[in-house]
Amino acid sequence: MMGSDSDLSVVEETGKILKELGISYEMTLASAHRTPELVQKLASEAEGKGIEVIIAAAGAAAHLAGVVASHTILPVIGVPLNSSPLQGLDSLLSTVQMPPGIPVATMAVGKAGAKNAAIFAAQIMGRKDKGIVKKLVAYRKRTALEIKKKADSMKGL
Amino acid sequence: MMGSDSDLSVVEETGKILKELGISYEMTLASAHRTPELVQKLASEAEGKGIEVIIAAAGAAAHLAGVVASHTILPVIGVPLNSSPLQGLDSLLSTVQMPPGIPVATMAVGKAGAKNAAIFAAQIMGRKDKGIVKKLVAYRKRTALEIKKKADSMKGL
Amino acid sequence: MMGSDSDLSVVEETGKILKELGISYEMTLASAHRTPELVQKLASEAEGKGIEVIIAAAGAAAHLAGVVASHTILPVIGVPLNSSPLQGLDSLLSTVQMPPGIPVATMAVGKAGAKNAAIFAAQIMGRKDKGIVKKLVAYRKRTALEIKKKADSMKGL
Amino acid sequence: MMGSDSDLSVVEETGKILKELGISYEMTLASAHRTPELVQKLASEAEGKGIEVIIAAAGAAAHLAGVVASHTILPVIGVPLNSSPLQGLDSLLSTVQMPPGIPVATMAVGKAGAKNAAIFAAQIMGRKDKGIVKKLVAYRKRTALEIKKKADSMKGL
Amino acid sequence: MMGSDSDLSVVEETGKILKELGISYEMTLASAHRTPELVQKLASEAEGKGIEVIIAAAGAAAHLAGVVASHTILPVIGVPLNSSPLQGLDSLLSTVQMPPGIPVATMAVGKAGAKNAAIFAAQIMGRKDKGIVKKLVAYRKRTALEIKKKADSMKGL
Amino acid sequence: MMGSDSDLSVVEETGKILKELGISYEMTLASAHRTPELVQKLASEAEGKGIEVIIAAAGAAAHLAGVVASHTILPVIGVPLNSSPLQGLDSLLSTVQMPPGIPVATMAVGKAGAKNAAIFAAQIMGRKDKGIVKKLVAYRKRTALEIKKKADSMKGL
Amino acid sequence: MMGSDSDLSVVEETGKILKELGISYEMTLASAHRTPELVQKLASEAEGKGIEVIIAAAGAAAHLAGVVASHTILPVIGVPLNSSPLQGLDSLLSTVQMPPGIPVATMAVGKAGAKNAAIFAAQIMGRKDKGIVKKLVAYRKRTALEIKKKADSMKGL
Amino acid sequence: MMGSDSDLSVVEETGKILKELGISYEMTLASAHRTPELVQKLASEAEGKGIEVIIAAAGAAAHLAGVVASHTILPVIGVPLNSSPLQGLDSLLSTVQMPPGIPVATMAVGKAGAKNAAIFAAQIMGRKDKGIVKKLVAYRKRTALEIKKKADSMKGL
Repeated sequence: MMGSDSDLSVVEETGKILKELGISYEMTLASAHRTPELVQKLASEAEGKGIEVIIAAAGAAAHLAGVVASHTILPVIGVPLNSSPLQGLDSLLSTVQMPPGIPVATMAVGKAGAKNAAIFAAQIMGRKDKGIVKKLVAYRKRTALEIKKKADSMKGL
Repeated sequence: MMGSDSDLSVVEETGKILKELGISYEMTLASAHRTPELVQKLASEAEGKGIEVIIAAAGAAAHLAGVVASHTILPVIGVPLNSSPLQGLDSLLSTVQMPPGIPVATMAVGKAGAKNAAIFAAQIMGRKDKGIVKKLVAYRKRTALEIKKKADSMKGL
Repeated sequence: MMGSDSDLSVVEETGKILKELGISYEMTLASAHRTPELVQKLASEAEGKGIEVIIAAAGAAAHLAGVVASHTILPVIGVPLNSSPLQGLDSLLSTVQMPPGIPVATMAVGKAGAKNAAIFAAQIMGRKDKGIVKKLVAYRKRTALEIKKKADSMKGL
Repeated sequence: MMGSDSDLSVVEETGKILKELGISYEMTLASAHRTPELVQKLASEAEGKGIEVIIAAAGAAAHLAGVVASHTILPVIGVPLNSSPLQGLDSLLSTVQMPPGIPVATMAVGKAGAKNAAIFAAQIMGRKDKGIVKKLVAYRKRTALEIKKKADSMKGL
Repeated sequence: MMGSDSDLSVVEETGKILKELGISYEMTLASAHRTPELVQKLASEAEGKGIEVIIAAAGAAAHLAGVVASHTILPVIGVPLNSSPLQGLDSLLSTVQMPPGIPVATMAVGKAGAKNAAIFAAQIMGRKDKGIVKKLVAYRKRTALEIKKKADSMKGL
Repeated sequence: MMGSDSDLSVVEETGKILKELGISYEMTLASAHRTPELVQKLASEAEGKGIEVIIAAAGAAAHLAGVVASHTILPVIGVPLNSSPLQGLDSLLSTVQMPPGIPVATMAVGKAGAKNAAIFAAQIMGRKDKGIVKKLVAYRKRTALEIKKKADSMKGL
Repeated sequence: MMGSDSDLSVVEETGKILKELGISYEMTLASAHRTPELVQKLASEAEGKGIEVIIAAAGAAAHLAGVVASHTILPVIGVPLNSSPLQGLDSLLSTVQMPPGIPVATMAVGKAGAKNAAIFAAQIMGRKDKGIVKKLVAYRKRTALEIKKKADSMKGL
Repeated sequence: MMGSDSDLSVVEETGKILKELGISYEMTLASAHRTPELVQKLASEAEGKGIEVIIAAAGAAAHLAGVVASHTILPVIGVPLNSSPLQGLDSLLSTVQMPPGIPVATMAVGKAGAKNAAIFAAQIMGRKDKGIVKKLVAYRKRTALEIKKKADSMKGL
């Protein structure tokens, strides 16, 4: 779930990795402030629809993840976006500093966080689906191998 | 409206000044995250009950004012509180950085903001009640006079 | 009121929304530091001229809104602008951290704040003009609808 | 897992809530920098020992959660602590700004985060144990009720 | 000039050093926001009264020095005070980030700045009064000597 | 004095205004860290050469103004530059947070500060040269007039 | 050692200066989080291979230098990079705020730090190789001379 | 070397660990700004006196380490102290953000940094004195053992 359609290019990173890990997902747009009933509906109906994890990405006073978390018992992952002049410090603090009782699992600001939200969702789902764990292990190995190849190509620089 | 009962000692400053200005008010506690339905109910019913302005005070990832604002057309004043280790920078950014469409009139962090929320509410109400404007003018004169007296007592220091 | 003509492109956002809401306004330029008498004159004469709300936008050590507020009993809305290397943290803190007695209703840094200043002004004026409330309600519905349309167009991404 | 024994009083908050939710846990101390082999051993053996989630709390350049996450496929929750003169900004950024590939689910700085780590761990485990979901729902109701009671006791203030 | 009587204990440091350097001064209280006419009067009459330099100390959205500077051609020294939850970052940025045309010579936050305001005022006045330069040179020598004595007493630690 | 030749385009702003005010100046380059003896020589010989004020502009860990101030009794004006990834917060704090005894009159970060350094230098020199005060008054009037003209041209926007 | 191949253009600055100082080096890529065993292997084998100093450059939650330091007794120099939306504040705090026991010698954020890492490594190696000290002294003289030449070319500006 | 005698209680931590590692040292007080000649003398004579490493600790606009580094080819370790209202952010940035050419090896703010300065100095000296390396290895083992003991004592909590 993203708070503004201008966030799409960042949030697509989440989708790409979920696809790569073979996890089905729905991508949607809903604003905590401009469409509060929509957010509430999506959040409170998610568990019943068989959704396992909700990822919410928003910038500025990023309340989206927190508002979603207040309406569901599902784990909510928050991705703070860098879309105001304050460059993500505002969305990071608005997402992570949740009061006791309603946690939001906060990722890094921007694209790194959008990618990691997909991986963390898979890690949660891996707790009951060992097939996902296997895919995660393979993904990690692939990533590590790529780094090692690049390291090799640096020899002699 | 405050987000936690530990905020009471700061929010009382708002009440004191409202009393001084002869404005009736209700003080209540409701958490944007732990009691979202209560916040929504209070916010959406406020206009119908004849309330003119809503003041919301909260700390940390202070979503209270923003969530209230998303459920009412009344002016919402936000008071960021200093109740986390980050000393109010988190609540300030969470309150003020609202997306286009749903403004929150943000005051200073802590007691100064709690006092000014009362005065700003009175300034709004003064737009249709000249009696309140008179009280505000008198309040300002009194404040200015106190400062001048203190300034006089400093002579010779 | 803006503090520098280089702020015009941002402040025009305020004008657009005021027009959209059918609220008449005057746009002007006055610097708290370079033309203090002009600011004082504009602020202290505003109430007499039938002005209901003053919006002041400025960057850096943004004193404009505070200085205006010190010379009028009208509600003053401050828009911190992102026009120095410190990217708006300076103007945000200079605008919002007002001392007890003289509040400034602070909006988000930059364009989001410029838009919200118009909406918040309308919310204040709505307290005595139900026609404005109707326009605000319609504006919100339109915004929510646009978001829902965009959400629909995302299906299948 | 905590990075220093001086963090015990904060981390105990995690233990209290886990107990309340009927979730068994092991509490231990290991420093990412001073006992790296111990951290690696604990992290890499956790899955085999039947551990479902790892919570890592640390202050300053808080690498603990990140280092743990690099050695396990289990979900890792990070709690940044406020134990240096920079008051938790350092531990927050060190914990949350993880590179793509190795996420850490970051909670709020300090006690609020320590409590929420327990609740978020329960939300993850609730994905395969509906009994935990029931306890979480009950916990939320209890929290909401307490807030409503306090709200009632404020009437007339 | 200080913005609040609660700042007196810090501002007294300025007075002590001015006395030590044999420079006469007037200490007064005036709030840029609550007594704007008083500030304007003091600032615009200062040159005519033979005042050489104005020192203005204020906390939070510290506009005092900037407002004074806008009403006088005298050099204005600003001392940002640490009197809000944001610990002086607000007053520092509000004081130092002045727009082109109206400078404020900003000192360090708090007591260090209060002391240095006195010394810098003396350095300005020293441009036409060589007696003050002599006193400043003596003051510096004394300070350096004290440090060297303390350094000697540390030998063997 | 500037700390790096890459700062020239900003520091030229200082020169332009000094010329406009009819104040003669020398512009030079000297690094507090890479040419410490040169800085010391320039600073300690300045008074003897009839220099009235020293302006030092530097970025990053901007020690230049502080080091200059430690070697002269002349007033030193510091201009923090925005030349590192931290965008001037580093140079601002390095310039302004001077310890008691050795003040640096700090201006705004970047071009605004470079311009104001010239004006403040003129304000200091105006204490013994009334011709400079006249030029400053004329400069201010011109600036104010320009703003008023721009304000007039905005009518009807 | 760098944490990502996208850091290469900055880290090459380190290589250039090492070459200039006649110090042989190996440049490699290894991620503290994605290839932890590789980092551990490189760090723990370095001393045995005759390496004298390790330089580690990384952005965001920059754990690389700290993780390296935890696996070797060699001096480790950390270069925080500016590669996330938070512009290097995250990598600076993650690198410098090391707990007691495992220091990382932290340099400036970005290119300045990459260059200085080479020079500081040379200063360390100069403790047992006076030839390197001579080269460093020559390097400094050259740098100082360049600045003086540029200063000369500024005369008359 | 410390910049103020009020820093003694923090700097003593450096001394304790140096003693523990059998490294002889001199502790002294010298202010970069108030006793610049003394700092220059100490820095430029250090190498000739057989000193291997200089540790400089200072708060606020902490120029001490940078000024020392500009006068010696010895490795200089900087310890930023938390002695101003800005809580060490000022001293950290003033110490670490050195320009290319003159590095300062910066440690954590406050006591953690004071301790690590001693250890890092030992790591440098260990490059030519294997006896120090042995002591460092033993120190690390001792620290790790203490942590493991504390971890054991936590079992069952």
